[in-house]
This record gives sequence, structure tokens and C-alpha cells, in this order.
Amino acid sequence: MFEAVALGQKVEKADYDAALPELRTRLLKAQAQLEGAGFPVIVLVNGADAAGKSETTNALHEWLDARYLVSEAYGEPTEEERAHPAFWRYWQWLPPAGRIAIFQGNWYTQPIQERAWKKIGAARFAHELERIRKFEQTLADDGALFIKLWFHIGKRDQKKRLERLEHNPETRFRVTREDWRQHAVHNRILRICEEAVRETSTGLAAWKVIDAVDDRNRNLSAGRELAERLEERLKQPRVRPAPVPEPPRSDPQTVLDRVDLGKHVSKDEYDARAAALLGKTSRLARKFLRKKKSAILVFEGVDAAGKGGAIRRLVRALDARQYRLIPVSAPSEEERAHHYLWRFYRHLPRRGKLTIYDRSWYGRVLVERVEGFATHEEWSRAYKEINDFERELSDDGIVLIKFWLHISEDEQLRRFQAREAEPWKQHKITAEDYRNRAKKNAYEAAAAEMLERCSTEYAPFVLVPAEDKRYARLTVLETVCESLENAL
Amino acid sequence: MFEAVALGQKVEKADYDAALPELRTRLLKAQAQLEGAGFPVIVLVNGADAAGKSETTNALHEWLDARYLVSEAYGEPTEEERAHPAFWRYWQWLPPAGRIAIFQGNWYTQPIQERAWKKIGAARFAHELERIRKFEQTLADDGALFIKLWFHIGKRDQKKRLERLEHNPETRFRVTREDWRQHAVHNRILRICEEAVRETSTGLAAWKVIDAVDDRNRNLSAGRELAERLEERLKQPRVRPAPVPEPPRSDPQTVLDRVDLGKHVSKDEYDARAAALLGKTSRLARKFLRKKKSAILVFEGVDAAGKGGAIRRLVRALDARQYRLIPVSAPSEEERAHHYLWRFYRHLPRRGKLTIYDRSWYGRVLVERVEGFATHEEWSRAYKEINDFERELSDDGIVLIKFWLHISEDEQLRRFQAREAEPWKQHKITAEDYRNRAKKNAYEAAAAEMLERCSTEYAPFVLVPAEDKRYARLTVLETVCESLENAL
Repeated sequence: MFEAVALGQKVEKADYDAALPELRTRLLKAQAQLEGAGFPVIVLVNGADAAGKSETTNALHEWLDARYLVSEAYGEPTEEERAHPAFWRYWQWLPPAGRIAIFQGNWYTQPIQERAWKKIGAARFAHELERIRKFEQTLADDGALFIKLWFHIGKRDQKKRLERLEHNPETRFRVTREDWRQHAVHNRILRICEEAVRETSTGLAAWKVIDAVDDRNRNLSAGRELAERLEERLKQPRVRPAPVPEPPRSDPQTVLDRVDLGKHVSKDEYDARAAALLGKTSRLARKFLRKKKSAILVFEGVDAAGKGGAIRRLVRALDARQYRLIPVSAPSEEERAHHYLWRFYRHLPRRGKLTIYDRSWYGRVLVERVEGFATHEEWSRAYKEINDFERELSDDGIVLIKFWLHISEDEQLRRFQAREAEPWKQHKITAEDYRNRAKKNAYEAAAAEMLERCSTEYAPFVLVPAEDKRYARLTVLETVCESLENAL
Repeated sequence: MFEAVALGQKVEKADYDAALPELRTRLLKAQAQLEGAGFPVIVLVNGADAAGKSETTNALHEWLDARYLVSEAYGEPTEEERAHPAFWRYWQWLPPAGRIAIFQGNWYTQPIQERAWKKIGAARFAHELERIRKFEQTLADDGALFIKLWFHIGKRDQKKRLERLEHNPETRFRVTREDWRQHAVHNRILRICEEAVRETSTGLAAWKVIDAVDDRNRNLSAGRELAERLEERLKQPRVRPAPVPEPPRSDPQTVLDRVDLGKHVSKDEYDARAAALLGKTSRLARKFLRKKKSAILVFEGVDAAGKGGAIRRLVRALDARQYRLIPVSAPSEEERAHHYLWRFYRHLPRRGKLTIYDRSWYGRVLVERVEGFATHEEWSRAYKEINDFERELSDDGIVLIKFWLHISEDEQLRRFQAREAEPWKQHKITAEDYRNRAKKNAYEAAAAEMLERCSTEYAPFVLVPAEDKRYARLTVLETVCESLENAL
């Protein structure tokens, strides 16, 4: 497959110099247009050792406006990176809309190396490629333009290039024993790379394989690919239709109607059981975290369902150093310029820690859906994206505990009125809360669909009857204990 | 000193319940006002083991609107945190303007523990307190409101509290051998804490010592202190005067006039020396980084001085995984809501890495001064702040290499015109560049003052004659080699 591009094409210096002005002008023009175009560009520079990845990356840096470039080269993961889910470190440096990022040393490097040195087998390698495909797909679906460049050189050419570097006293130090070790198995690595390129050339994120033997040819080909793909994309009309709020609907029959809201716990029973459960939670959490396990707790529910109260009771069982509480409200300017999952990736727990989200990524299929901040296509796609995201976390050993606290419409109204009566709770109740009530049916339908589609065996939703606060709080504590116990 | 507060004051449950509505209302009102007030609030919760730090932190969480709270409890530093300058981890979680952050387990914890267990001596402890003072001062000068709560309990009361916890089967596990080890030397720790409190009670960030024996009294005192200090501050008129641009000035005689702009290197000489220097830089960088040392390179200079070109040549000697290039432009919304040094702290290199800043924190005393984005008081204060900041980095073992690339007015005009003639460089030249030229005297005066005041023995500025690009690039490479060599 790679051989097909190995045509030995050369570009003379004079031709190169003559071609540059036009190419650079095109690149800069496209980059300037990109600024307001609302999507990010992700450039991957991959290929064999000594294929000229750094040289071309440097050339792109020179040709583009470096002020609007993001550039990162991933080496071996640091201890901090290893303490987080595998893709966490890649999410950190994703470019916002309007920017170009160049990644040399990226999510392909490690699986390919591990496969080359037989640290992982064929099945595991295929699984790693599948993870990459999902990762790229979720970004591409959100509008990211992928330009994936694969620099190919054959074994003989690699040898020549390594020898040339060694021959020059100024560059000799750049060739290490590791390079020659890689060279010895170049053909095996090539076959592995071919598999990677084949399996991850999806419609939205296809590879461009470039003959890398001649430096000038490689640079020009890379620059032109970037210019062409970017220009082509900029010409397309922006496909995102104006999102529309959900139409009003008649009272839907949903899973929420079957919740038994009559559950009740007396004060005495609560006091007795809560103390015991808090102690148990505390012991389990210490044991769980000491084993360097981590967990994510998600609290969702309609306004006034009692999320905050349940969280405050729960954290009494925890040491402040064990957890981080993330209250989720409207995204910031910076967050809006990224994929909607980006801001949640930032706060994922490291091993040995808990993260508690008071509202979460489920906003995508709840408020964003109902209020029309996300298009129909965006929120429908989100179920799969969220399931994939949680699968990633679960595969990385993170325990996911997700709650939907449910109350009746009448109880919600009672709580709103009670809040208004207490001066220090008035801030919790605004005209918007009443407006949201008017959309109750739409919110319930969205919640029901979410519960149905995102309750997976690896990350089940727990539907908590919360009409009685005490009952809800005990249920939360019990569920947390159970989940931690199961994971131990 | 602490004994003075130990009055054994108790609050009865009825009184506590009666006092809460008013306190909670006050807190919420103040928090709502804070939103638009343009400054952050930093609450520190410190004190002995079992003094009730977590309990009061939880109470504050319950009383305040948790959506606008930041909360962090620092434990032992992680490997990633240890690979960065000491205060890096604290800067990460500083609250933006309009928010309250509660830190339980903070920058006081480690020095006090190390001193208590005699891992550091008296002089080193005093030095650590001095670092804290500077850190808090720079934040307070920028408007941060500090509320530092110290919870005091005497040895007898600590024993009672520990025993009470141990006695109850539900909380027994919370008392560890470490707690009793700390208890045994409680009086020695108290004296160390007294020193810390005394030495860091500055005008802008004074401690409030609270008798912590009675839970309700402690909670109320903490809540009231927060409410009072916040209300008091909100009542003060915003002191920041409208910044004014520098008045025009007659041609200043400065250190920049003495730069020999006649320095020149022929193409042949350049080619020969650049190759050798790149090789040398590369070897030195590998050796330097292998030893887990780190460096920061700062490039400053007027428009078109050749910063970008010098950086691109330099990075040819580096592996992309060795460095991160940070081009600095106008701050984002999120960055503007923080101290101006915050965004630079985010990208500080970890051990074994380089960070290259294309423009930097010196913008504070250059463009922000000249264009009037910073007030006179703000930019005058910045020299000291920057020197302290760089001292911190240098003390942490980071090598600082700072360049000012200098060109004449005529050369700058020639370069502007040359850029306009080349289509792919037109983007680099805007009407603003010409406007900046008109302010040349003000910019030169600002640059000269910066060079004079921020060229320290631990972080000297290198003034590079850049009229001839080749000469400038060689000087940069030579300086980098020299600095790395000296540090090895």
C-alpha cells in the first residue's frame, strides 16, 4: 500500500523556491479565513524515523502564522498522564475553533510502537485503533477538520538518510542506537503502520500518504495538502442548521411515571441509618482510594430535586483531599470554542481520587436539547458519544455512579415556594426556574430518553425517588457504598 | 498568642439556629454582589488536627452558592507537581474575579509540617514564609481579598476531640496513629504555627485566629468573618483609576541608543557558524534535559525585530518533544479574570523540558504600559512582581534566558515595507504596526526601563543587536549554548 506512493519524485531547488510564494500566500489566506469559521484543524504528522517529520513541521510553522498555531509532540506519558484515562493528555491540547494544531508524536505513536515490539497482540492493537477511530470521529462530527499526513520511506532510503545524518559531524548525535534498532525491523513496522493507516482512514479523517524521500517534495506535498483541504472546507457552507427548541408535546408516558414517589423515611430511621452509612462510605472510600482506584459521581435531576443537599451529605464522609466537586453551569467562552466534552475531560479524576459532577455532560441531551442550544443532529449523536466516552473511562478502570433524582411537579412547586420564603434560599429560585417548569413535558421526555439510552452495564443510571429528601439521601449513600464495594 | 482567643466560648443550638438565617442571607447577598465586583476571594482554612477544618468548610459550602465556589484541598504534591516550581500547583486553582475559593490544605501546610518534624531548619522556614508573603502580596496587590482563618485548639481539647471521635464506632476510623503522633508534639507545632501566623499577617492578608473548641462557635465565627470582610470590601469604591496611555515624550536617551547596530555577519560566515552552533545547541540541550533541568527562553523586541525567525532557527536544534512554544497575544476572557501572571504559570516547563515564550509577561511593562491597559500603579509594581516571579523560578532550578532584539527605526520601516511586498508576509503587517511606530519613544523608554530594572543576576536580559538578522540569530544561539553550559 505504501509502496504505491514511493515514486521517487524529486523537486529541484529552483522549482521549490518558485512554488513557495503561492503556497505560503494560500496557507496564510486560508488560516486568516479559518479564524472566524467556527471549526478547528488537527494536523497529524506521522511516519518512520528519519522520514523528516520535524523538518516538515518546522516548515509548516514557518509558513503559517505561528500566533494562531498550537503545536505539541507527545513522548512517553508522564506519571500524571498515566494516572489519568489514556486520551486525557490528548484532550488537553486540542485546538479551539479557528485554530490549527500540529501533533507530531500523537495517539498513533504508542500503539504502533507497542505492537512493533510485540508488547501487545493483534487483538489489542485492533482495539486501540478502534478507540482512536471513535476519538477522531467524535471530534470530526463536531466539525474538526483532520489532516493526517503519513510520511513514507522504504528501508533502503531510511538507511541512506540515517547514514547521511551520521556522516555529518554536526548531525551525528541525532542518530541513536534506538534508530538503528527500529531500522532493523523497518519492514515489520511498515506492515503495522499500513494496518493503522488502513483501519483509521475514515471518511471524515482519512490519511494522506506522502513519499518522504525528497525533503522538498515532502514539504510541498504536506503544505499543499493542508492548503487544499482547508480551502475546500472553507468553501463549504456552514452546515450547522439553526437549532430549534423542542416543540411542546403532550404529556409523555415515560419510565419516570413508574417511579414510586411514595418512598419515605422517618427522621429517627434516617438519623440511625445515615450515621452508619456515612461511616461505611468513609471506610470504603479510604480503602477504594488507597488502592489507587478512581470514581466519577454524576448528579442530575430537575431543579430543586435535591442534588446539592445529597452531595453535601455525601462529602461529609470524605476527606477534602479525596475528591473534587465540579458544579457545572453555562460554558465559558474558551469552553464553547471546544468540543462539548472537552471541559469535562479537564477535571477527570486521577487514580486514587473522586470527581463529583453537580450536573454534567448530560446537559447536552437535557437543557441543550430542550432549549435548542444543540441541533437535533448534535443531541441525537450525543447518546453514542457519551456512551463511548463513559466506556473509555470505564475501560480505564474508573467507576461511574450516575444519579437521576426525581420529584413530582407538585413537590417541585412546594420547594420553589419554600425557597422563596427563606431569605438565604431565594437566590436559588429565579424566573427561569418557573419557565423551565412550563417545559416540564419536554424535560421529562428528554430525561426519559437519556435514562433509557445511557444506562449501560458499565455505567448504569440510578433513578432515585427524591420526593422525600431523607429517602433520596440514604439511597445515594447506599448506592455509593454498593458501587465501591463491588469495585473492591 | 493563640491562647488569647481560647476563651472557651460556646454557642447553644437554639442561638445557632436563630443566627443562621441572617448570616446565610448576608453571605449570599455579598456573594451575589461579588459576581460583578472584579476581584476574587481567597479563603484559607488552617489549624490543628481535629480542630474542625472540614466541618466548617462543609458549612461554608452549604451556606454559600456552591455554583460560584472553587474548593481545593492540597495533599502531598503529585509527581507532576513536584516536577514544577513549588507554587505552580497553587496558581492552577486560583479563583477568577467574582468567585470565592476555599483552600483547606494549602501553601502553609507543607512548610509547617516540615518544620514540625525538623526536616527544615529555622532559616529555611523563615525563607518559606517569605515566599508565601510575596505570593500573597502579588495577589492582594491585584485586588484579591484574603480571608485567612486559623482554628485554634489547645492540647487538652485536641485530646478530648480525638477521644470523642475514637469513642464513636462510626467515626473511630477517622483517628489515625498520625493524629496521635501530631498530638504528642502539639505544643511544639503550636509555636511553629504562631510564627507562621505572625510572619504572614500582612496588612492585605492578615490572619483571623478563631477559638475552635466549640463547633457552633467556630462555624459562626468563620461565617461572620467572611461576611464582614466581604461586605466591607464591597462597600469600598473600586480603587482602580482609569489607566491612561503614556504621554508622548521627547526622544529619550536610553541604554538602547548605545546598542551597536553595525554588527554584521557575512552569509558564508553565518552558514559555517550556524551549523556548528546548531549542533552544539542540540548536544547541550539533550545533556541538559537528560539531567532533568529545565529552562525558559523569553523573546521580546519591537515589531519586526526578528523574534520569530530567531526562534525558528533555534528550534531546529531541538526535538519537538523537548520544548513548548508559547506565542503570547491578547489574553482571553478567562485569562483577563485572573492575575496577569496566571496565564504564564499555566505553561511553565516541567523538569526536563524547555518553554519558549514569543513575547511574555513583560507585556505588562511594555504594551500594557504604553497603551494604557495597565494603570501607572499596576505597571510600576510589576517590575518587583516580575523579579520575584523569576526569582521563584530560578530558586526552583529553572534557567532563565531573556532576549531583547533591537533594531533601528529605519530598519523596522524597511522590514515593514519588505513584508508588504511579499504576499505571504502581508498578514504580519497591519495599520496597528504603523500606529505603534508613532509611539516609538514611549516604547523605547518602556523597554529601557524594563531592561534596567529586570536584568537580574539570576535572570539577565541579553540585549541583541538585530539590525543584521544573521548576527542576531548567531547571538541567540551562542547565548543559549553559554547558558546551558554554565548550568551543566
